[in-house]
Amino acid sequence: MSLKPFFAPQSVAVVGASSVPGKSGHIILKNLVELGFAGEIFPINPKADAILGKRCYPDMAACPAAPELAVLAVPREHVPAMLRQVAEKGTRHAIIATAGFSDTGDELGLDLENQILEIAAANNMRLMGPNSIGTIDTTSRLITSITHNDPLPAGPVSFFGQTGLFASGITRWIYDSQPFGVAKIACLGNKNDVGEIDLLHYLAEDEATGVIGCYLEGVGDGRRFLDAARTAAARKPLVVLKGGASTLGGEAAAGHTGALAGDSEVFAGVLRQAGAVSVSDLSELFDLLAGFAHGPLPNGRNLGAISITGAGCVLSADAAERFGLALPEFDDQTYARMREVCPDWAPLRNPVDIWSSIEKSGVEESYRQIGLAVAQDPSIDMLLMAITLFPGSIFDISSIIREIREAAPEKPVVTVLLGGGCEENRDWTRNAHRAGAATYPSIPRAVQALAAMVEYRDRRRRF
Amino acid sequence: MSLKPFFAPQSVAVVGASSVPGKSGHIILKNLVELGFAGEIFPINPKADAILGKRCYPDMAACPAAPELAVLAVPREHVPAMLRQVAEKGTRHAIIATAGFSDTGDELGLDLENQILEIAAANNMRLMGPNSIGTIDTTSRLITSITHNDPLPAGPVSFFGQTGLFASGITRWIYDSQPFGVAKIACLGNKNDVGEIDLLHYLAEDEATGVIGCYLEGVGDGRRFLDAARTAAARKPLVVLKGGASTLGGEAAAGHTGALAGDSEVFAGVLRQAGAVSVSDLSELFDLLAGFAHGPLPNGRNLGAISITGAGCVLSADAAERFGLALPEFDDQTYARMREVCPDWAPLRNPVDIWSSIEKSGVEESYRQIGLAVAQDPSIDMLLMAITLFPGSIFDISSIIREIREAAPEKPVVTVLLGGGCEENRDWTRNAHRAGAATYPSIPRAVQALAAMVEYRDRRRRF
Repeated sequence: MSLKPFFAPQSVAVVGASSVPGKSGHIILKNLVELGFAGEIFPINPKADAILGKRCYPDMAACPAAPELAVLAVPREHVPAMLRQVAEKGTRHAIIATAGFSDTGDELGLDLENQILEIAAANNMRLMGPNSIGTIDTTSRLITSITHNDPLPAGPVSFFGQTGLFASGITRWIYDSQPFGVAKIACLGNKNDVGEIDLLHYLAEDEATGVIGCYLEGVGDGRRFLDAARTAAARKPLVVLKGGASTLGGEAAAGHTGALAGDSEVFAGVLRQAGAVSVSDLSELFDLLAGFAHGPLPNGRNLGAISITGAGCVLSADAAERFGLALPEFDDQTYARMREVCPDWAPLRNPVDIWSSIEKSGVEESYRQIGLAVAQDPSIDMLLMAITLFPGSIFDISSIIREIREAAPEKPVVTVLLGGGCEENRDWTRNAHRAGAATYPSIPRAVQALAAMVEYRDRRRRF
Repeated sequence: MSLKPFFAPQSVAVVGASSVPGKSGHIILKNLVELGFAGEIFPINPKADAILGKRCYPDMAACPAAPELAVLAVPREHVPAMLRQVAEKGTRHAIIATAGFSDTGDELGLDLENQILEIAAANNMRLMGPNSIGTIDTTSRLITSITHNDPLPAGPVSFFGQTGLFASGITRWIYDSQPFGVAKIACLGNKNDVGEIDLLHYLAEDEATGVIGCYLEGVGDGRRFLDAARTAAARKPLVVLKGGASTLGGEAAAGHTGALAGDSEVFAGVLRQAGAVSVSDLSELFDLLAGFAHGPLPNGRNLGAISITGAGCVLSADAAERFGLALPEFDDQTYARMREVCPDWAPLRNPVDIWSSIEKSGVEESYRQIGLAVAQDPSIDMLLMAITLFPGSIFDISSIIREIREAAPEKPVVTVLLGGGCEENRDWTRNAHRAGAATYPSIPRAVQALAAMVEYRDRRRRF
């Protein structure tokens, strides 16, 4: 049965809809109503006539139609009974937001989760959760998160995993900084039914999804996971963060989701064979998603780098070597174009220290002219521009990025921001994103993302 | 001769002071006047009577007294003549902001730098630069940066290096986010006289400095550098970022500062022997400075961790293992204290997943009670609190950090912020800093900083 109703149902019931601000059942409804979900919404609450302007129904039976999706946010001991109502109504997809089942490990929780499973199996239902913080779809505008959300920019990035972070703090960050656009997000919770394998197959086929990110702690069936990862990675970039990869982390993962985390190196090797990219932290996960979201995939491993400081050049070169990229010499025409904005005495090489050019031609003209020259150099496959944010060097980069992307559409462009205040960093990230460049807070992180794009392209060629 | 006049002179001349906003000679004067430098300021400019309300003098000879420090911001071909005037006046310390000497490698630049060196030698002067972006001292309020600056929070962190980043973009970041307080900053430029060795000796003795950071590309005399590093690290934490450590990076460093970067592994080993901590990127450098700035040094390697998400617990455990920290079991009393705010069924272990506690007792009370319990556990040496920023979880952490720091003053506390908007992250960082905790944007970065503190303490014990 398709996972589509978890993201784009025609109609949704909120079982346990609440009129009390702060309650999960209130926030879910509020997100749906205020963020523009276009389908029908049925709040289920026996004690209210209407919540947030939406007519309430006392139970599922009273609902005027069978909703395609039900979201349950009621105390754990009521979940089985409510899920039975949902099944009897004819609804076949349910997200259970309530926690306190196999995630806690107590006897009652385990017993309740077994009851839920039996109800779902007997009624041919698909379940997400329990303990799921929810799903997000920027096309249907469905948001089932139990935390307040803001409207996310639409785009190609879909990610999912065994953590509520993805539909709470991370969406807050994406809304604010807009480092990339989002297609779909799913927080899988306890995964008692829908798990990573289902999501991989679904997102591999999903037209709105151009790149997939995944956080997981353990997979039930390694062979099936590998097949799903291979299928997905053959179609679009797949980036996987495996938590619990260490001995200590594996013990913590067993405590968190009951997952047996497995051996980390075996797992990383398996992922690589499947064509996926493996990362070791959340920041790396989102760094790579941002890179892939903007693309294009570079045609080779030749980096051209520009920095306003000599240290930025040196650290770019260190990072290039560390992550396996090359820094070729430019050709004569490129040097000639750069000389137009530089003083005669300026030493020019790759990476380019543009400080002397800035003194002669100003900061914007320097990045424009030198950025274009480097990006159009025939031996260069991708461009990194490191920028130091201080008063006097803060400008809108978007027109420069647009020009460069148009002049060399087959080459990815990334920017690195060093220093500067938070609002300057945020505005710059937004502007760069809209113009088509991923933005990073450190040089090695940017180079790592570019190197992952090279690696993914190389692997896909061999498929 | 002491370096003190580079940071806290009684008086300073700005040679090439300009009335044109945007010019280096204008910005230097503006920073001095507006940011409250308490000593005398002598602008030197033959064409102006006064700039920014300060009386101008046509040349050094006309200056009413010999300033303790002169800052030169004149075109490179005028630098030797102006430096001669400075020497003749009796001034013995000069910062040369002008670029275009050995940093460019052209014949005129090299010749001019040689002239400067001869003048300095003949007159027993100390020079910083040329190509120095300036110095900062939060006690004297001297700021000689050629970029606009804001007033920095005072504190124990001093850092210096061969990059203008440190007195430009990085100060902007520190002013905005206030991740730690600053004592002194120096941008060494071409290091034709004052270099890393001088700074290490000076800052080792400097009472305002509690921790030292250094970015370098090459050192002239390895043995003397090692001696200086050992001297400094025996007194206070020393964190070193070596740029140009790779083959490609070494070539870039030769282009940037003409430095021969040397073999990276030999250098890292030498640093470690000297008791210093070696890092591989700017973000790590500042991460560790923030950790050391707040202190105290942990008594052992036992980490207690708390997270609002299970994934945060798992990733904390992964990072602990990666960086060599342990996650001991808590004692019975600690569990009993945690149980007071948790539902009965909540699984409790180290790292602590406090989600269930938040549902029962609220987010602030959970961090307070569980943070205190973990920090006071006798087997715990340091505390990490990972927090996810989303509406509903955003509060002022400072009173909680203060309580914990008072209850367990011998144990460092760090916070990690996952997600959230830029202003929330900034405000949280400021609040945590003022309350005595370093704050990081990722779990591995926080754990790496704590591990460096453990490592430094272990090494110092063996001295």
